[in-house]
Amino acid sequence: MKQMPLVTLTTDFGTADGYVGTMKGVVLSIVPEAQLVDISHSIAPQDVRQAAYVLYTAYRFFPRHTVHLVVVDPGVGSVRRPVALRTPAGMFVGPDNGVFSYMMACEPVEALVELASPRYRLPKVSHTFHGRDIFAPAAAHLAAGVPIAALGPAVHDPITFPSPRLEMAANSATGEILHADHFGNVITSIGLLRWEGENVSLVPTFQAGGSERPVKVRLRADKATVLVADQEIRGVHRTYANVEHGQTLALVGSEGHLEIAVREGNAASKLNLQPGQAVTLQW
Amino acid sequence: MKQMPLVTLTTDFGTADGYVGTMKGVVLSIVPEAQLVDISHSIAPQDVRQAAYVLYTAYRFFPRHTVHLVVVDPGVGSVRRPVALRTPAGMFVGPDNGVFSYMMACEPVEALVELASPRYRLPKVSHTFHGRDIFAPAAAHLAAGVPIAALGPAVHDPITFPSPRLEMAANSATGEILHADHFGNVITSIGLLRWEGENVSLVPTFQAGGSERPVKVRLRADKATVLVADQEIRGVHRTYANVEHGQTLALVGSEGHLEIAVREGNAASKLNLQPGQAVTLQW
Amino acid sequence: MKQMPLVTLTTDFGTADGYVGTMKGVVLSIVPEAQLVDISHSIAPQDVRQAAYVLYTAYRFFPRHTVHLVVVDPGVGSVRRPVALRTPAGMFVGPDNGVFSYMMACEPVEALVELASPRYRLPKVSHTFHGRDIFAPAAAHLAAGVPIAALGPAVHDPITFPSPRLEMAANSATGEILHADHFGNVITSIGLLRWEGENVSLVPTFQAGGSERPVKVRLRADKATVLVADQEIRGVHRTYANVEHGQTLALVGSEGHLEIAVREGNAASKLNLQPGQAVTLQW
Repeated sequence: MKQMPLVTLTTDFGTADGYVGTMKGVVLSIVPEAQLVDISHSIAPQDVRQAAYVLYTAYRFFPRHTVHLVVVDPGVGSVRRPVALRTPAGMFVGPDNGVFSYMMACEPVEALVELASPRYRLPKVSHTFHGRDIFAPAAAHLAAGVPIAALGPAVHDPITFPSPRLEMAANSATGEILHADHFGNVITSIGLLRWEGENVSLVPTFQAGGSERPVKVRLRADKATVLVADQEIRGVHRTYANVEHGQTLALVGSEGHLEIAVREGNAASKLNLQPGQAVTLQW
Repeated sequence: MKQMPLVTLTTDFGTADGYVGTMKGVVLSIVPEAQLVDISHSIAPQDVRQAAYVLYTAYRFFPRHTVHLVVVDPGVGSVRRPVALRTPAGMFVGPDNGVFSYMMACEPVEALVELASPRYRLPKVSHTFHGRDIFAPAAAHLAAGVPIAALGPAVHDPITFPSPRLEMAANSATGEILHADHFGNVITSIGLLRWEGENVSLVPTFQAGGSERPVKVRLRADKATVLVADQEIRGVHRTYANVEHGQTLALVGSEGHLEIAVREGNAASKLNLQPGQAVTLQW
Repeated sequence: MKQMPLVTLTTDFGTADGYVGTMKGVVLSIVPEAQLVDISHSIAPQDVRQAAYVLYTAYRFFPRHTVHLVVVDPGVGSVRRPVALRTPAGMFVGPDNGVFSYMMACEPVEALVELASPRYRLPKVSHTFHGRDIFAPAAAHLAAGVPIAALGPAVHDPITFPSPRLEMAANSATGEILHADHFGNVITSIGLLRWEGENVSLVPTFQAGGSERPVKVRLRADKATVLVADQEIRGVHRTYANVEHGQTLALVGSEGHLEIAVREGNAASKLNLQPGQAVTLQW
């Protein structure tokens, strides 16, 4: 299997302006044979948590030599540090503002450096477009094989978010809504869930006090209930097609998180759900 | 001419979430040197017919070794079969829900199989994201040269839509609106039309009773009339610039179908036109 | 550094239909190893000036062997000429309607030809989709190494826009709004600005009477004032983070143009600003 330099891009730039294209031009000027893959450019402006979530769902499906370039950067030009990280699952480049938090909860960080070396930046660095002037060149040089330590000094105190809410009780787990996707499907912090016959197992991730060993819970899917926004949804299903057109359901989403959906409909708008709202799974 | 693995993607996933990027990561993990081309990710959610139409307009302009990956899949996780098809114009991977109907009306199918072999899926298959777990791996393996027969058993009864409406009469053809595009240009099922001097020839495609040999009709473009939504549009034109700014016109579209447009305007909203509405061309 | 054929695409096609994918299929049918990079497909329909601006911000960050394919083409099928240009900064393919004006203000044109040779078009040319039938094949052949002169006869009178407004006075410069970006940041024609310590220098670009040698002005950033839409903005800043959340500011944008922004907000909607409106920088 031939290894080619591979760089993904996740930003809040939208695709109407030339900003994303410009960053790609910078990458290809440095490493012309690179493959470029868009993860998302429709992160809500300055929404670092949403970017952290979208990156979390995608990075693990890429080859290990991938460099993930993430530019959601409300602090551009201020004191926030530009950084690069190396993990066994890939390399990551972006601002040190928490955008790598969810990924870092899953992957050991082998190296974390500040992008301080002028050698791996564009010759002229603007105050407002570090995506072009600092982050894209760093990602390109990493993809081309430059060792991460060459890019700058080690960082020992990266900024990370508190984990999403996930409180375990005797017969329930309470979490929060993480994301509403393009279909209006709502993904929650309650996970990881897995099917075991007619049961669903829950091994808490993102749990408060992450150093304790997580306890595995087993529950009957058809007896479970989901409470969200004063509504009660009965049962946990395998897929959308298990209920009638237009019906609300809870299910185990493709990432192993509890998901709330409406078959061929939009759960976020039908139930008026927003990121941050509490969700309880009872069994 | 060097042949490189080439995979196109057509989905209703939008580009805000990481879903499309995730599928690309899966493809590149299997066939790292693949080229990836987006056809559309803005198919209306679960609109299989729209996906069938968009694929129909695009696939024939790609090299013959292209694998077209189409994931518009309201039945994900239910009994609908995942399939792959081989034709002289390329290979196709997606759900067996009719999404390949318009393409299959134009291309002989050389092989059609169910994606049953676990070897060409991801190790863990979710119930809700077969794009990632079944379709993307299948497309990648086909692009890498795996013979289609290795992916699973032959399918003899694929699901196809009835053809779009196209009724020929002595001095008229009646069809339906297939699609309103980004500009508000409205494409109809009346085709294929071709210019022959000042005349337009019509060789019916999508015709009811497709086994009969289609009859070619020749009509004078400036004498023809289009009837749609209680409005009458006189003449068939070559291009938008043949009429004044803001004027409605009928023309022969770039695919050879009758098209209704407004010069530098939006015909779909100005005339309030929707897919499925009847259109008559009189001569 | 290995040179690979590289083609960028800028259109007003949107990404919902298969039009952009179709053009890419045409390019890859001619030059299968080409890399394809989207600059923007969300140019407002038929807005040639916006396309000219977006191209201007992006092209210079691409390798010099890049072919930039631009299809914003209200005159498709009429007498407007399809053209290709060669400059030291790359090649350009599109309609002769002014879309290359801002780029041509910065780059010497080494060759400019009409895309007249049928050899470098698709065999059948429609009246309404020259992006597919004329421009994409031309870009592909140029990327593959065909000399530009082979594509058709030289053009000596390309269409260009008048430059954007930029009037210099003793203590002020008056320009116009060029573009409001995805964040609502508003970019003006007042530039090029550069930081020199606490001062900002202004070397007029886009100036009326471009043959005269531009005069460099130096001004104190904290004493300058920007007037726009009956509002006064004090000071010129380095970056968004220099002001409080929600505050309006003027700054030197990433291209060296005067920019008006709201920190973590949308200046275009907050101040109701539109392209074409006058802006004055006083010092």
